[in-house]
Amino acid sequence: MPITHEIPVNLTGRSYKVTVGVDLLEQVGAAAAALTGSAGRGVIITDSTVRAIHADAVADSLTRAGCRCDVIEFPTGEEHKNLTTYGGVMDKLLSLDPPIDRKSVIVALGGGVVGDLAGFVAATALRGLPFINVPTTLLADVDAAVGGKTGLNAPAGKNLIGAFHQPGAVIIDAAVLKTLPAGEFGNGLAECVKHGVIRDDSLLDFIEGNIAKIMAADADTLAELIGRNVAIKAAVVSADERESSERAHLNFGHTIGHAVETAAGYGVVSHGQAVAVGMVAAFGIAEARSLIDSAAGRVRKILVALSLPVGFDDLPDLPAEARDPGRLREIMAHDKKTLGGVVRFILPVAPGSVAIFDDVTDEQIKAAIAAL
Amino acid sequence: MPITHEIPVNLTGRSYKVTVGVDLLEQVGAAAAALTGSAGRGVIITDSTVRAIHADAVADSLTRAGCRCDVIEFPTGEEHKNLTTYGGVMDKLLSLDPPIDRKSVIVALGGGVVGDLAGFVAATALRGLPFINVPTTLLADVDAAVGGKTGLNAPAGKNLIGAFHQPGAVIIDAAVLKTLPAGEFGNGLAECVKHGVIRDDSLLDFIEGNIAKIMAADADTLAELIGRNVAIKAAVVSADERESSERAHLNFGHTIGHAVETAAGYGVVSHGQAVAVGMVAAFGIAEARSLIDSAAGRVRKILVALSLPVGFDDLPDLPAEARDPGRLREIMAHDKKTLGGVVRFILPVAPGSVAIFDDVTDEQIKAAIAAL
Repeated sequence: MPITHEIPVNLTGRSYKVTVGVDLLEQVGAAAAALTGSAGRGVIITDSTVRAIHADAVADSLTRAGCRCDVIEFPTGEEHKNLTTYGGVMDKLLSLDPPIDRKSVIVALGGGVVGDLAGFVAATALRGLPFINVPTTLLADVDAAVGGKTGLNAPAGKNLIGAFHQPGAVIIDAAVLKTLPAGEFGNGLAECVKHGVIRDDSLLDFIEGNIAKIMAADADTLAELIGRNVAIKAAVVSADERESSERAHLNFGHTIGHAVETAAGYGVVSHGQAVAVGMVAAFGIAEARSLIDSAAGRVRKILVALSLPVGFDDLPDLPAEARDPGRLREIMAHDKKTLGGVVRFILPVAPGSVAIFDDVTDEQIKAAIAAL
Repeated sequence: MPITHEIPVNLTGRSYKVTVGVDLLEQVGAAAAALTGSAGRGVIITDSTVRAIHADAVADSLTRAGCRCDVIEFPTGEEHKNLTTYGGVMDKLLSLDPPIDRKSVIVALGGGVVGDLAGFVAATALRGLPFINVPTTLLADVDAAVGGKTGLNAPAGKNLIGAFHQPGAVIIDAAVLKTLPAGEFGNGLAECVKHGVIRDDSLLDFIEGNIAKIMAADADTLAELIGRNVAIKAAVVSADERESSERAHLNFGHTIGHAVETAAGYGVVSHGQAVAVGMVAAFGIAEARSLIDSAAGRVRKILVALSLPVGFDDLPDLPAEARDPGRLREIMAHDKKTLGGVVRFILPVAPGSVAIFDDVTDEQIKAAIAAL
């Protein structure tokens, strides 16, 4: 059970460790016991897909560590990340016998949907329970698993309901990614590219130099890739827990990306695909504003090598509405990051560096979308 | 618009002011503008009863202060403090046009149910909005409005879903209490007695000396009563935001009281009535353990003068199950404050002073309940 990276996340009054490596599921029990105390209790919240593959290993780990273990499952899919599913999971959690108490640990086992929903359950059951995030997708590994954002989708938009709730520990096992569908796997890579653009040009070098191993899901290569990405995300989140300036950089590619995802309807495009075209559009705006010159081409080439979309032609299932610049601009006005009607953009200004712009015009936004 | 008390509440990284006085509803707008900025926005969340009486005054105040104002209403009653109502209010909030943003202020206008539900909406909409609590019942004034607890009831028990979310301001208008039903008003007094027992014997003197004015809802007397109680609650909460030791003292009377409330079913006994008999039972346990000698009689006399119950005979609608010591003990095991099966009691040890006891036996608990 080799650990390759241990990344501390330091937040006001709370800090925790992200452990990255290969074959780490068996370490979840020890982490839970450290939070819940001896003869403690863990409740695994997972989806139906992940339960079938990984829940037994994690449950065994909890039992071996002396913890009582229950498993609560909900159906797989972004369409279940809503208040109805939350209510059902919460009812099951609060009806366990013997009842849970404030030292009971929630173990979120799954992708971003599981982490967000189980994290929100942990944030709001008994006004807050400790939780351990055990992400099982590359996207969740490098993005959702660090930062403390939990949440649900609402009819009016994605992630509009939620809370900040930091995990007690995050345990990332790169070996579990071998069971990940190719499409889902590729999507996580979009966030890796994003991290390279906003903070670390050498990460783009690493990706360029390891395309074949990455696409073959080589566990050691992925552990290295994940470790580097988590370190970037953790540094940004530690610097700015509440998303006022530093953390806003993580929204690079997400402003237009989220709008595309919302307009398409949940599940039509993945988060990573939406972010990929969102990044291309952001580069388009940056070029139109003469912020950069040649960087856009390199990033497009990397996205293509990673089988990620760089334009609407790469997303044939995308409905016309989700390609419409006017409609997408309207959706952006409803984004929770929009303050007083101003749509904030994160744009590249140099290799590994971005800045915040509050003065992007409607014309620039629509032109960049039209060029996709 | 006389302000009689301004009580600072100091919590890690956040502090706010509780303003108590007479005819203060017209000051809500200025408080909202201070939080949301110029040309800001306030959304009043209230119940159908309070909307009819007070919402116009608060809406006018917001408009005069330059804030856009919307009102969201839900049906009056503890039975609506649940996930279904929360989901409905949240959907309305997230569907407002133009959409709310992270500077939009939630104004909770109503009793404890409104404060808890609207506070939980504020805690979880867009992962956290500023909110102003404007309580309109004595119980909410002296108990729920300070402390940052928000929450919903679940089928498995009261307040099992929720979050800690501190208000930006609390504005308490003693004049609104003249419209309060006598029963509801008397219930709030139970918390005042509790505060006297746990921290301030002179508060019991004040109550004893002003029974007639209190029972006549004299606004100046109530403002003084509320101010003194808020100061006690604020001092306790500031000292211990996360309810580990100091704050646990506020649970005096609640351990058995909550169990009675749960066993009776929502709405059969009020919170204040349940706490009143819970306090009597706690005094019974304290006497059985020889912690105190004569104090119990004085507190019983005050409760009677305030038309509060001191035993099950005073609660004729209480079902047999809610008088059953064994059943109540079982419910206590499910309380979210119970850790590892140990039921924690707060017991009086001297005038204005209580302590925490983790070793109260099942026999002592059941005997005190049987004596009610």
